[in-house]
Amino acid sequence: MTESTTASLAEADQRPAGTLERGSSIATDTDSRPGPFDGHEAVAILERARASIDPELRAAIESLPGSMRRIARYHFGWEHADGTPAAGNAGKAIRPALVLTTAAALGGPGARAAAVRAAAAVELVHNFTLLHDDVMDRDTTRRHRPTAWTVFGDTDAILAGDALQALALRLLAEDPHPASAAAAARLAACVVELCEGQQADTAMEGRGPAEVTLGEVLAMAEAKTGALLGCACALGALYAGASAADAEAVDAFGREAGLAFQLIDDVIGIWGDPSRTGKPAGADLAARKKSLPVVAALTSGTPAAVELAELYEVPYDGGDLEPTVLAVERAGGRDWAQGQASDRMARAMQKLSRAIPDPEAAGGLLALAEFVTRRTS
Amino acid sequence: MTESTTASLAEADQRPAGTLERGSSIATDTDSRPGPFDGHEAVAILERARASIDPELRAAIESLPGSMRRIARYHFGWEHADGTPAAGNAGKAIRPALVLTTAAALGGPGARAAAVRAAAAVELVHNFTLLHDDVMDRDTTRRHRPTAWTVFGDTDAILAGDALQALALRLLAEDPHPASAAAAARLAACVVELCEGQQADTAMEGRGPAEVTLGEVLAMAEAKTGALLGCACALGALYAGASAADAEAVDAFGREAGLAFQLIDDVIGIWGDPSRTGKPAGADLAARKKSLPVVAALTSGTPAAVELAELYEVPYDGGDLEPTVLAVERAGGRDWAQGQASDRMARAMQKLSRAIPDPEAAGGLLALAEFVTRRTS
Repeated sequence: MTESTTASLAEADQRPAGTLERGSSIATDTDSRPGPFDGHEAVAILERARASIDPELRAAIESLPGSMRRIARYHFGWEHADGTPAAGNAGKAIRPALVLTTAAALGGPGARAAAVRAAAAVELVHNFTLLHDDVMDRDTTRRHRPTAWTVFGDTDAILAGDALQALALRLLAEDPHPASAAAAARLAACVVELCEGQQADTAMEGRGPAEVTLGEVLAMAEAKTGALLGCACALGALYAGASAADAEAVDAFGREAGLAFQLIDDVIGIWGDPSRTGKPAGADLAARKKSLPVVAALTSGTPAAVELAELYEVPYDGGDLEPTVLAVERAGGRDWAQGQASDRMARAMQKLSRAIPDPEAAGGLLALAEFVTRRTS
Repeated sequence: MTESTTASLAEADQRPAGTLERGSSIATDTDSRPGPFDGHEAVAILERARASIDPELRAAIESLPGSMRRIARYHFGWEHADGTPAAGNAGKAIRPALVLTTAAALGGPGARAAAVRAAAAVELVHNFTLLHDDVMDRDTTRRHRPTAWTVFGDTDAILAGDALQALALRLLAEDPHPASAAAAARLAACVVELCEGQQADTAMEGRGPAEVTLGEVLAMAEAKTGALLGCACALGALYAGASAADAEAVDAFGREAGLAFQLIDDVIGIWGDPSRTGKPAGADLAARKKSLPVVAALTSGTPAAVELAELYEVPYDGGDLEPTVLAVERAGGRDWAQGQASDRMARAMQKLSRAIPDPEAAGGLLALAEFVTRRTS
């Protein structure tokens, strides 16, 4: 029941879209590869994915009994807490976009159309985990609004999450597509991995700064953030009738891109411009979060690591965070995270080119990977 | 986050087996129908079901990552909290027995053997709901042991429940049986109904004694207790290749038997012999639970109803519960509940004979229905 170390992609959803489209990118070293890296292309892909899945998603939510439906509608931003219609901010639909874009890349427009139900299922799973994570982490804000548990209570938020998981797997079970059973098995296995990631995350926050290894925090981030991005790509491949090897390759692409995202998000959590990120400067450090750059710094074996550990041993007293920021930097936390993010993106591109050698076909996925890792530093 | 009104079948699991096998039965009025009503037959069916599903169940749990596996093993009674092996009390396996017995009745031994994975999936879903319900209801004891959340914390208990739901649906997604997709869709829909029942239950406990209708509490009990028993039977029918009409009929049989169970359980909660039930006399009344006989009494329009409502308006002060017991009785709560239970069992038998006219084939299901509703008054 601690604050989460992992900034999920949903947190990115909370930042104004402009901050994601501008600024420096860790993926610039891949710009020599073919494929459009235009943020506008990614935005168009995301909007199209949202438009494709929304009817399926809304029909699924409407099938819920009243009590669960109400919470789901609120959570998706379709309704206010009092049940009146809301403008709606259901998130950026990154995962459904990965399903649909992978299906299109490997199987053309027909495969994309066939994969809409699977894309909605992935989005339902993502939102089930958000509902539960917010209860566990006691997070009070999601997509600029009070979280469901703060409005409806823990019990109803947990039950609504349970119902969304069931709904996701029902969508696939009712899908006559020949890939639906394999997709359901893969998505269910991914849910277990997401649970493992969240468990590791909360457990880690309860431990001392010297007790967490870099391997652990990387494994946690992969399970909590990378797994569902990888699974989304794999489901797209399955619906395109791709080979098992190609499904694994795009899964690895999604995982690596997800880890790159997490690394950059953690860097921004320390060195980001508050006016652009919408977060107060150093908020992660004030909360003593064991983010990736922090753990890299703590385990660096440098004098600055000792200094940082001493700072992290005591709760934040409201004072100047600059010495903490500097300690992470001097211990190499920032350089390590940026280097890792570049490595992960390079690996992601490698995996992608294995599954989809045609740069034009791979363009949409490259644009999405670029989008989730292009951040204002 | 209130105490649950609904005594789940798992609470019956907590009573010594002997109390369930002896004593008067509400099903005696159906004894003229053919079919064995020997409690020993039911016990044998349950033991055989447990033996059939255990390898599948254990293999599924072993596939979980370490953190989740540990909680699941504890919850199933296979391990102590410290990870050392335990004698194991994973419950009576009533739901898996309903799957397997229905499959055998409609499709013979081959169908029973084919349905083992589906039976394990139903048991996983049941245990996912127990893990979550215990967190929400703050129940501290399950099957004579501290509940998982009291040992591992809320977060880990919620995550282990999430993982068990995913595991259940993965088992079906990976099952090559032609009925597995329909079974998965049905089980997922049932999960939503279970959530609805739990939501209604907790919401009802927060309301005043005059604000709950009999229709509401019956619908809640059907969703929370009847739905999964009905679904278990329906899955057995699907795996036997039975018609949609037969699947609906055995689903209705399970639901009605489940409601009969709940009614009798609620009667025992007020008038049961504490030495046989293992619960203190009047515990449900002391907790001001809105059980079925209580709501029947409150809504009876009798002078005793007014009296009972006044007693229920104030928290129990530790005094004599006899006036409360008598008010429920005088308002007709006991008679109504016993009459309803008999009606439900009669309806259950009717539904069953529609799907399985051969009394010998239906014998196992009759024995199970008798078992869950044969209780010491």
